[in-house]
Amino acid sequence: MGSSFGSKLRVSLFGQSHGTIIGALVEGLPIGFTPNLEALGTFVERRSPGRFPWDTRRREEDEIRIVSGLNAAGTICGAPLCILIENTDARSRDYENLRYVPRPGHADFPAWVKWSGRNDISGGGHFSARIMAPLTAAGGIALQILEAAGIRASAHILEIDGVRDAAFTTSDSSCSGLSALRAEMDMLADGRDFPVIDTAQGEIMKERILAAKADLDSVGGVCECVITGLPVGAGSPLFDGLESQLARALFGIPATKGLEFGAGFAAARLKGSEDNDPYEMRDGRVATVTNHAGGILGGLSTGAPLRFSLAFKPISSIPREQDSVDLVSGEATKLTVRGRHDVCAAVRAVPIIEAVSALVILDALLGDDLIEV
Amino acid sequence: MGSSFGSKLRVSLFGQSHGTIIGALVEGLPIGFTPNLEALGTFVERRSPGRFPWDTRRREEDEIRIVSGLNAAGTICGAPLCILIENTDARSRDYENLRYVPRPGHADFPAWVKWSGRNDISGGGHFSARIMAPLTAAGGIALQILEAAGIRASAHILEIDGVRDAAFTTSDSSCSGLSALRAEMDMLADGRDFPVIDTAQGEIMKERILAAKADLDSVGGVCECVITGLPVGAGSPLFDGLESQLARALFGIPATKGLEFGAGFAAARLKGSEDNDPYEMRDGRVATVTNHAGGILGGLSTGAPLRFSLAFKPISSIPREQDSVDLVSGEATKLTVRGRHDVCAAVRAVPIIEAVSALVILDALLGDDLIEV
Amino acid sequence: MGSSFGSKLRVSLFGQSHGTIIGALVEGLPIGFTPNLEALGTFVERRSPGRFPWDTRRREEDEIRIVSGLNAAGTICGAPLCILIENTDARSRDYENLRYVPRPGHADFPAWVKWSGRNDISGGGHFSARIMAPLTAAGGIALQILEAAGIRASAHILEIDGVRDAAFTTSDSSCSGLSALRAEMDMLADGRDFPVIDTAQGEIMKERILAAKADLDSVGGVCECVITGLPVGAGSPLFDGLESQLARALFGIPATKGLEFGAGFAAARLKGSEDNDPYEMRDGRVATVTNHAGGILGGLSTGAPLRFSLAFKPISSIPREQDSVDLVSGEATKLTVRGRHDVCAAVRAVPIIEAVSALVILDALLGDDLIEV
Amino acid sequence: MGSSFGSKLRVSLFGQSHGTIIGALVEGLPIGFTPNLEALGTFVERRSPGRFPWDTRRREEDEIRIVSGLNAAGTICGAPLCILIENTDARSRDYENLRYVPRPGHADFPAWVKWSGRNDISGGGHFSARIMAPLTAAGGIALQILEAAGIRASAHILEIDGVRDAAFTTSDSSCSGLSALRAEMDMLADGRDFPVIDTAQGEIMKERILAAKADLDSVGGVCECVITGLPVGAGSPLFDGLESQLARALFGIPATKGLEFGAGFAAARLKGSEDNDPYEMRDGRVATVTNHAGGILGGLSTGAPLRFSLAFKPISSIPREQDSVDLVSGEATKLTVRGRHDVCAAVRAVPIIEAVSALVILDALLGDDLIEV
Repeated sequence: MGSSFGSKLRVSLFGQSHGTIIGALVEGLPIGFTPNLEALGTFVERRSPGRFPWDTRRREEDEIRIVSGLNAAGTICGAPLCILIENTDARSRDYENLRYVPRPGHADFPAWVKWSGRNDISGGGHFSARIMAPLTAAGGIALQILEAAGIRASAHILEIDGVRDAAFTTSDSSCSGLSALRAEMDMLADGRDFPVIDTAQGEIMKERILAAKADLDSVGGVCECVITGLPVGAGSPLFDGLESQLARALFGIPATKGLEFGAGFAAARLKGSEDNDPYEMRDGRVATVTNHAGGILGGLSTGAPLRFSLAFKPISSIPREQDSVDLVSGEATKLTVRGRHDVCAAVRAVPIIEAVSALVILDALLGDDLIEV
Repeated sequence: MGSSFGSKLRVSLFGQSHGTIIGALVEGLPIGFTPNLEALGTFVERRSPGRFPWDTRRREEDEIRIVSGLNAAGTICGAPLCILIENTDARSRDYENLRYVPRPGHADFPAWVKWSGRNDISGGGHFSARIMAPLTAAGGIALQILEAAGIRASAHILEIDGVRDAAFTTSDSSCSGLSALRAEMDMLADGRDFPVIDTAQGEIMKERILAAKADLDSVGGVCECVITGLPVGAGSPLFDGLESQLARALFGIPATKGLEFGAGFAAARLKGSEDNDPYEMRDGRVATVTNHAGGILGGLSTGAPLRFSLAFKPISSIPREQDSVDLVSGEATKLTVRGRHDVCAAVRAVPIIEAVSALVILDALLGDDLIEV
Repeated sequence: MGSSFGSKLRVSLFGQSHGTIIGALVEGLPIGFTPNLEALGTFVERRSPGRFPWDTRRREEDEIRIVSGLNAAGTICGAPLCILIENTDARSRDYENLRYVPRPGHADFPAWVKWSGRNDISGGGHFSARIMAPLTAAGGIALQILEAAGIRASAHILEIDGVRDAAFTTSDSSCSGLSALRAEMDMLADGRDFPVIDTAQGEIMKERILAAKADLDSVGGVCECVITGLPVGAGSPLFDGLESQLARALFGIPATKGLEFGAGFAAARLKGSEDNDPYEMRDGRVATVTNHAGGILGGLSTGAPLRFSLAFKPISSIPREQDSVDLVSGEATKLTVRGRHDVCAAVRAVPIIEAVSALVILDALLGDDLIEV
Repeated sequence: MGSSFGSKLRVSLFGQSHGTIIGALVEGLPIGFTPNLEALGTFVERRSPGRFPWDTRRREEDEIRIVSGLNAAGTICGAPLCILIENTDARSRDYENLRYVPRPGHADFPAWVKWSGRNDISGGGHFSARIMAPLTAAGGIALQILEAAGIRASAHILEIDGVRDAAFTTSDSSCSGLSALRAEMDMLADGRDFPVIDTAQGEIMKERILAAKADLDSVGGVCECVITGLPVGAGSPLFDGLESQLARALFGIPATKGLEFGAGFAAARLKGSEDNDPYEMRDGRVATVTNHAGGILGGLSTGAPLRFSLAFKPISSIPREQDSVDLVSGEATKLTVRGRHDVCAAVRAVPIIEAVSALVILDALLGDDLIEV
């Protein structure tokens, strides 16, 4: 059906871009944890639209309302947790010209065929990135639970329009490599508006975004994420491996077109003798010296930092005239997309990636009883 | 649990590298189809080990035995279909030195932790690529069903050790682009031992593999796959989108580290005006002029060829001395991997990729009742 | 996790008895159907509490709010459908004495153990029959969809406190038997407050309920349900058979303790020659002459009316002093349950049973593509 | 799809009555347990056909072959466990006259419609009770695991053709009631061929079976099962409650038509003050004084013995002439069922019920991490 994922911890999304309420149903959260709702609000705000010049001008407060799943003390009580968020700034009139003229690069055309013309067009309906808001909230709770158990997920923009941020230090899994990584993660946790490690590169990225916007165009980007503190052996073999589960969930983020773990596509150009991560004993524990595997072997965590990067295509909604067709008349037609849109998906994707990763990882840990709450 | 995937069509794998029998249970195959068992045997043989100088020297006939799911006429009858394959050439003594010394780059260490030291070490047990044999057989049936409905999946080696094959023609989705693609697919269907489009490049790749082997090393590679003939609208939004479902299954193939759809990571460097695929009418049907999306928008097929590529790290089992640790004594130790192994995962992965893709696609089509059998 | 069921059509419930909002998330409803919301409100009202002297005095309007899943025209659009209902008449102070003293016959004690004392006690929290309100709404939509396809589900009170209503005519599956059944179903569809076929018996039942109430006690009951118009072959073998799927969902209705299909427990006293339903041709179609099987063989519908009955234990919450223990002090203690409660579960269960049956049947039909919308 | 159940522990059955091999795939068994294969063989033999005068004359050795899931030491190793059993005594010629003439009381007719005439008719194909053999073997392993954790499941024949065995002592949950129950369970564990508590009643039951057989007829029956030693709080609310999960699996046993927990249908005639089970402290633990609930409240175990009974219709295959139709010609026709069949399902169902219960209970316990292995 599409809108749910997870096994022991299951998240189901609902809502449409221009509906009154969007939300997430979260089943299987660990009982006894008391989420910090204020911190959760701050986290969700990182994804909220309309705050910066590089964002869409649609402005949503994204106030979270948890209507079930907590007891009177605000503690997770065992019942399914439901998060509601109201849509307050939808402007459906912008979509009137799209009813039968699909936007290139959007789900409009295949959704119209799949759902027999009944799909909700306004704002992309259920296919809208707006649906990521309650997902981010759900993942924000998972992040808090993981953090309390010493597991951190941290993402940043790695590249926009070809401009690169410094990458996380992950191939080097020695003590000094690990502390360099920790410093990078700490840096990103300072609440910066534009989540990059190298802020000078970040400034260039912003310029590129604004330039594309001025040019009625959009740009793509890449994000990178690490998760540290994972116990060894989390995950499953084959199709429920950490890579498989993360991949399934991450490709659900709109505009995602590529995903690689560890050395990823670059690993295809390495020799085995270069790529293999040798083992050593460190403080009485088994550790890998390097980490080309991105912390995963056979679908299972090795205990080294889990690392992946995610490629986003440029935002499809651009206010330029494009070629399309009228689905009813069957005539070629020109289309100019109205509405208010981001220019680059990678910016606001950062907290979404952290949220999705946290949900997948927490599910895997709960399934194997590898986390104490 | 890991070893199953699919919803309406569900595949569950079982067996260990050195067990007596490995197999696949396939639930939900469409009733009334009569698989061609001879053609299936030929297809499975493409993945069978030990046939060529670049393969492992373990030689398995991989004879398929279907013990349930067919009626007396050999037709799929509605009951679950079970495929059994015997292991005939296992040599467990090669693994005695690995009992407590994990191989770098393998699942040995995390599996030992996850499964409390009870995991079957011989040949990697359930984590072995040997388990791909019954999966390939299951997918071979799916491929036959798809083919009967006009849907084809075709994969090839795109790159080994940095040597590139010609890529499929997919960005150009005009009539001429599509016929170029068809010609490439036809070429690959001629039963060639080494599945590349440009056979000269293939010769260089073979040399690189044999050179790495002589050097007691291994190499990585990339495969590319296209699926043509898909109806518009196949798939689901969000986490059951075609990308999500393919990703989940494909990352279950051992050694996979990266996956991209359509323009993939390169799309991150495009502008929206370059990446968007405009629509046109062609023979009374809606078509995209270009195909940077790889045939998928919003998780749904657009009707254009579905395209992805998959990166494989180099084979981890190399007969060189490597650093490892003894899990029982906690001492650093040197390890030399014995056993018979491939040098490059990408070669025998080609039919596996086709098989896995076919299972995922058939599941999506059956779920939406988009295929006639 | 408990709160969800269904495969192609999946229903997930959320909310607690004294929370602000309870609801149901429904994924997989058939696209293109436009539910009649007024009729749905009327159907849900049949279950609403506080309308009659034999009901609890808690009064809830149960106004339904559908916040997603419909397009602008009110038609099911493909996105998950979310139903919200507000709780307006909760009185949590009645539960203060129950915090550590479990009510006999309720989930309080095992829920306290399972959920480590974090469970929401007020009104039974997520274990409350209040959660049946959004389930009834979800099922009401399924009933409308089935009805449009000629499939009807009809339930009634078969027995309360030993007083029996006339049973549906189901063993006789001849033409005259079937029209008798149809007449019984039509009679029940007239909107009667107290759903029995024999209203005289119904009056005695009401007296028994009120007498038990006056005596600070409660009574049990049995409901019977038939579903007509099913296509032959709906269902699956073994554990997804119609009996299995109905059983799983129906035992989720609070206070259910027994379920039988067709002749049920009485079939255990029949000979094969008595119980077997012979086949005949009728109007060019295969039909069974009798229907001891309750319309199901091997988990599949035979086309004859599906019949089952469901036993409810007496309501556990009785305002008499009962023996319990203090979970914290470990002392024996007396407990008098306050709060407002029904006296007999079977009365308001009738629409719930129809709703649950409709959801299960619609799921089975959608899974096999056996229904046109 | 029908042939699988379970969540953390998942069992999938395959095979047809007259196929060469039938089997069960079991995913999620707890790692580290070493099943006693000899005891497992003895357990499975209790269900094996052809051993007694009241059984079918089809004689199967039911030798179990476990081809995956164990390591070299015979210990459950984490990989899926596959059990194979060969069919050795199939006699398909007995089914030639059934190809188009469905047997009353069997799945033949709806299966023919559902599976478009491709269903395997011989011996009922996948709908045959023969498929219970590997299920019993899978459950036998679960029983061993439970027993090692102090949890016992014990079933017996409660009634055949109206002749009643003594019921288990379950309503009385005092110390003396519990020891009476323990004695009854011990008695049944002595390996008796005909599992009844009151052997004199058992002799009458056998006579009734043989008399029905001589009369070319069959009889129905009821079985009763208890499970002791369950931890408090096992199970889930609503649709994954112990009743729901047991019901789903138990209705998969061929010929099952009714199921009740605790006082069951009789509870419908009790007052709340009679049915409620009061709490007391016993040896520092909370216990119920009585047990009308059958050990389950709100889907969760109370710690008291879980009790249910299961009604079986008479065996449908009787060697008398019966009315049926020819599905191809559409003509009424007479049918005499050949083949070798049981007379009463309840006899050989006893170990199946124990096996199925054990699988469901073990799944619930593993899901909540409530069992140590």
